[in-house]
Amino acid sequence: MQFEQELKQKTAEVEVLLDRALPAEEGFQKTIFSAMRYSLMAGGKRLRPLLIRETYRFFGGEDMSVVEPFMAAIEMIHTYSLIHDDLPALDNDDYRRGRLTSHKVFGEAMGILAGDALLNYAFETAAQAIDAAADEAVLHRVVKALQTLSRKPGIYGMIGGQVVDVELTGKEIPEDTLRFIFELKTGALIEASMMIGAQLAGADDSQVALIEKAAHHIGMAFQIQDDILDVTSSMEVLGKPVHSDEKNEKTTWVTLYGMEQARADVDMYSREAMDILVGMEGVKAPKETFLYAFIEWLIHRQY
Amino acid sequence: MQFEQELKQKTAEVEVLLDRALPAEEGFQKTIFSAMRYSLMAGGKRLRPLLIRETYRFFGGEDMSVVEPFMAAIEMIHTYSLIHDDLPALDNDDYRRGRLTSHKVFGEAMGILAGDALLNYAFETAAQAIDAAADEAVLHRVVKALQTLSRKPGIYGMIGGQVVDVELTGKEIPEDTLRFIFELKTGALIEASMMIGAQLAGADDSQVALIEKAAHHIGMAFQIQDDILDVTSSMEVLGKPVHSDEKNEKTTWVTLYGMEQARADVDMYSREAMDILVGMEGVKAPKETFLYAFIEWLIHRQY
Repeated sequence: MQFEQELKQKTAEVEVLLDRALPAEEGFQKTIFSAMRYSLMAGGKRLRPLLIRETYRFFGGEDMSVVEPFMAAIEMIHTYSLIHDDLPALDNDDYRRGRLTSHKVFGEAMGILAGDALLNYAFETAAQAIDAAADEAVLHRVVKALQTLSRKPGIYGMIGGQVVDVELTGKEIPEDTLRFIFELKTGALIEASMMIGAQLAGADDSQVALIEKAAHHIGMAFQIQDDILDVTSSMEVLGKPVHSDEKNEKTTWVTLYGMEQARADVDMYSREAMDILVGMEGVKAPKETFLYAFIEWLIHRQY
Repeated sequence: MQFEQELKQKTAEVEVLLDRALPAEEGFQKTIFSAMRYSLMAGGKRLRPLLIRETYRFFGGEDMSVVEPFMAAIEMIHTYSLIHDDLPALDNDDYRRGRLTSHKVFGEAMGILAGDALLNYAFETAAQAIDAAADEAVLHRVVKALQTLSRKPGIYGMIGGQVVDVELTGKEIPEDTLRFIFELKTGALIEASMMIGAQLAGADDSQVALIEKAAHHIGMAFQIQDDILDVTSSMEVLGKPVHSDEKNEKTTWVTLYGMEQARADVDMYSREAMDILVGMEGVKAPKETFLYAFIEWLIHRQY
């Protein structure tokens, strides 16, 4: 209960931060500002900004001024990917989180442009951290984080996974390809978030490499859990239709390996991720951090 | 003739640079690599990378290692905007530069993702300049250029203009709105290119502000000349259908102010831009630079 309350408060803080990062709805181009706001402020777990923040704190980071631009940026990138994903040419979804999707409200042209705008504005927002860097040392952390932010959502990360997923829609997916999609489409932004948090806090290269590995395992556990919940949960708990994978004859971790193995894999990946966090050198009482509790909650969530 | 030969050679060098900046067409996600290459390597005047390079040289820049990533990046951004512009929900164009558009070749879903991929990869590519920075002073130039690269193509730049243009398609456009569209949709990337060149060469803030102003005027002259050519040129010379503005009942500089005024405005804007270049303090023999000749050619071009 303590944890859930803290999570609620931290999530509310992210909402405030996102609201402030958005442009006011005025000027010739105000429609695009409205479309950006409509999708970015549509709720959600805010996992990625929370992962940036809590990984930053995990490594002893305190000053929030360089971190907040990246927290806003990663959520903008996640949101743009959802907007484009929902377009008629892709998943053709009319609703997301119980609200009409961007192209249903603003039209298809504006939906495409709203996605473009959020992706571009993510980099514009993150680049503001350059001005917030107090000294050369912090500037060096910021530019490393900018490199991560530009790489992980791209063709060797999220978009790369998305492309393969789109190409194989309605087809049977081989094991190595499903793993590739999981690692890139879901995993890359989780890796980005945790790496950026670590980089901004001044973690050294070997620590960042370890965090990337932990984030990889968390991403896998998270996505496999998603596949499990689609089978076992109910619409009331999950807040979205269940059994959608079965209906779409989609290859999932559960269809490939069975429910028992899927559950064992969630446990295996979580344990490996937790072991990395617990064993991180130079971090005091890792098990007492909010990051640790957050990831445990994330992986074993029922919604 | 000397100039045209030099331009041809410099353009060829940009082609080589773009080719090298693209990923090899292999791996699970190779379709997106092919789609990126198809559109980026489709030719064109390569204005924006050339403007970066020549403005860099104008201010005495020599080392190309930090400049080339930005040259590739700006052309990726220009190309993504064309791919999305051509989509059925926007201009619905089947051909560009005599070749089928991205969505006609790769399908609409992949066309959307190819645009996303190029926009994201532009920032990933430009961020490589961070590693190419030889010392702290150069790093500071690179981060300023990154800020420009993330701002000018965005909602306060190119996308902002594009949104207003899309919203007003088929409607009469008031004078101040047409100017806004010209300044943002066309002007912003020209401003970005020249500012980035100046910033990377170590121009000071007042020089960069002057170059932004010159680039603004060049953008205006360039776009007004575009409107003029749509009336006066022929398909053979222009390489694309003429009189398209009239057919689409589009508000242009010519419909608003008449041909005579439009021609006078091209002259006025060019003269002001040239005056800024010629008067730039600390630049030796500005009139002898390739940049000067290039911009003169650009504004008075017949195609």
